[in-house]
Amino acid sequence: MDDSIDRLRLIRTESVGPLTYRRLLARFGTVRRAIEALPDLARAGGRAAALAMPSRADAERELAGLRKLGAALVFLDTPDYPSFLAEMADAPPALAVLGDVKLLATRSVGIVGARNASANGMRLAQNLAAELAPQLTIVSGLARGIDAAAHTGAMQTGRTIAVIAGGIDVPYPPEHEKLQRQIAETGAVIAEAPLGTAPLARHFPKRNRIIAGLVLGLVVIEAASRSGSLLTARLANEEGRELFAVPGSPLDPRCHGSNDLIRQGAHLTETAADVLANLPDHPARQGLARDPLFRRAGGFAEPPAPILEAELDAATLRDARRKIPPFIGPDPVQVDEIARRCQLSSAAVAAVLLELELAGRVETLPGNRVALLATA
Amino acid sequence: MDDSIDRLRLIRTESVGPLTYRRLLARFGTVRRAIEALPDLARAGGRAAALAMPSRADAERELAGLRKLGAALVFLDTPDYPSFLAEMADAPPALAVLGDVKLLATRSVGIVGARNASANGMRLAQNLAAELAPQLTIVSGLARGIDAAAHTGAMQTGRTIAVIAGGIDVPYPPEHEKLQRQIAETGAVIAEAPLGTAPLARHFPKRNRIIAGLVLGLVVIEAASRSGSLLTARLANEEGRELFAVPGSPLDPRCHGSNDLIRQGAHLTETAADVLANLPDHPARQGLARDPLFRRAGGFAEPPAPILEAELDAATLRDARRKIPPFIGPDPVQVDEIARRCQLSSAAVAAVLLELELAGRVETLPGNRVALLATA
Repeated sequence: MDDSIDRLRLIRTESVGPLTYRRLLARFGTVRRAIEALPDLARAGGRAAALAMPSRADAERELAGLRKLGAALVFLDTPDYPSFLAEMADAPPALAVLGDVKLLATRSVGIVGARNASANGMRLAQNLAAELAPQLTIVSGLARGIDAAAHTGAMQTGRTIAVIAGGIDVPYPPEHEKLQRQIAETGAVIAEAPLGTAPLARHFPKRNRIIAGLVLGLVVIEAASRSGSLLTARLANEEGRELFAVPGSPLDPRCHGSNDLIRQGAHLTETAADVLANLPDHPARQGLARDPLFRRAGGFAEPPAPILEAELDAATLRDARRKIPPFIGPDPVQVDEIARRCQLSSAAVAAVLLELELAGRVETLPGNRVALLATA
Repeated sequence: MDDSIDRLRLIRTESVGPLTYRRLLARFGTVRRAIEALPDLARAGGRAAALAMPSRADAERELAGLRKLGAALVFLDTPDYPSFLAEMADAPPALAVLGDVKLLATRSVGIVGARNASANGMRLAQNLAAELAPQLTIVSGLARGIDAAAHTGAMQTGRTIAVIAGGIDVPYPPEHEKLQRQIAETGAVIAEAPLGTAPLARHFPKRNRIIAGLVLGLVVIEAASRSGSLLTARLANEEGRELFAVPGSPLDPRCHGSNDLIRQGAHLTETAADVLANLPDHPARQGLARDPLFRRAGGFAEPPAPILEAELDAATLRDARRKIPPFIGPDPVQVDEIARRCQLSSAAVAAVLLELELAGRVETLPGNRVALLATA
């Protein structure tokens, strides 16, 4: 319980995102020691004001609020946390779960697509989900259109998980309030954001990466070029998930993105059999990586090696703090490149980047790259 | 001229199909010597009655009929004959051409699909043909639906070839009489069947193989499972032509076959750019060959090696004529297998099979196989 409170305080601390959370634990071993080290780290990174961190009372209040709803909080590195999701470099440090926590450990497939889907597209999503649900948990994002159809179809024959962008207690979109409740009663609704969070645009890509991380494969039905579903597909591909796409007429712009996925190697999918025949037992460690769209992301960001404090004497750190910042600009740069050009060990670079991140001066991007934060 | 008459007589002789025609020329060197040898060969194969062969007057009458229409007769192994088509083992020994013979030598792409096409499918075919025609000759089969739309689109911006199943003077289907005339005036109409031939079911697969042989690539738009367009695609694949298919909704049965082609490796095609980016300079010598559908056909039938008469002394032939027939039944058998099991040279086997073919007792099938003819 104490551990839960500490974890939650660290997770909700300003400038501590999922990657930073993992780095802090890798460096300091326990949540408690990470919390104690935080003020010094942020100061060393050049931050003047103290980092905003919730008090123990704040954290206790959030846990009590979740209990009252009947929701569980599942932490990374605990047995209930879904194992495939844990393999993502930026896996959520904690997930609020309303419904059956055990469902997160089942074999699952995602079905996502256009909010403004065609009647045929929604029929396809519903049928496909109903055909797959006896064997697989169906994961989607509770959005209008394809997502809602997939959840509905899944509940006809099996169970479904809705990953939502806001807080676990916030129904969104409003017209899906009843659907959200039904899913929580028969399956599970999960959320990364704190209680009461109203979903904003920036929350949706985070929601999408959870879908990508949970599933063995992702089916895309009706996705226009540059749509959110395509971004989910890109994330899923980066995580080595199997990609499936339902073909559609070139005359319908809602099918351009999904057709393009097929062109890039996603399995052309007409029925449940197409999915079942191509679903692996485990995610692959390499996605399609055939297309510029996919290559751009830079592939898997390997988790950083644990930092041996012994390597980091005060002189080395001082040297690294002086040398590194000039190499980081608004254009993303590879972390390896910084180490090479500064002639520093990767442990020293990681330690200083952690400080700069906590100071809010630098952000980490996919492909093990960093960039100066515009707002620093 | 004399040579044309001899060629036409041999081509129109009973039991002389395209493969037999090529074997006769390979064995005897000239058409004249092949004609002289025919009666003995058929007799040796076990045929009692004489082979029906048109007289010189019959052949002259056919040539005069073509001249009157303004049509040319283009023979295999002459400069006007399209070179890619000539590479097919069973290339037509002669093609009647109404229109511009030179068009047969241009780079071309086929567009085929459902007769009962959707309005969207026909719009796609017409647009695609119009986009491609400035750079490529568009080849199709003058059928209702996709074929007609492709020809029509092609004539908006370029030129088109219609390959028809009946005689060059027979409009089919009747409602395309005007379209057929327009194509002949601006492009070319070609036919393998003799003048006056009304197209029957068995003529359409032969027409399809000519389309497959003429083109660098074939685009399939709306093809149901087990449709004629899929058979054309299979033939095109066997000839190493590039395959393209336009995707469509899994809810439309007219798209199942074309979607399946994509699943098997055909290029997913939405616009002309998809075709142009994947069209080779020359046909490949190997098709997709990934799927049972395609594998079943047994790949390329290599043209038989020329027979050295020296190898075929009378004793060897007598021996081969006695040994081979028991090995051929209604189930197709590999020619190589016959040679191995009878312990005969492939030249001896080829010589005897030619006799059996001319006697109407055996037919040659794709994949260098032969079978007993049911009607023998």
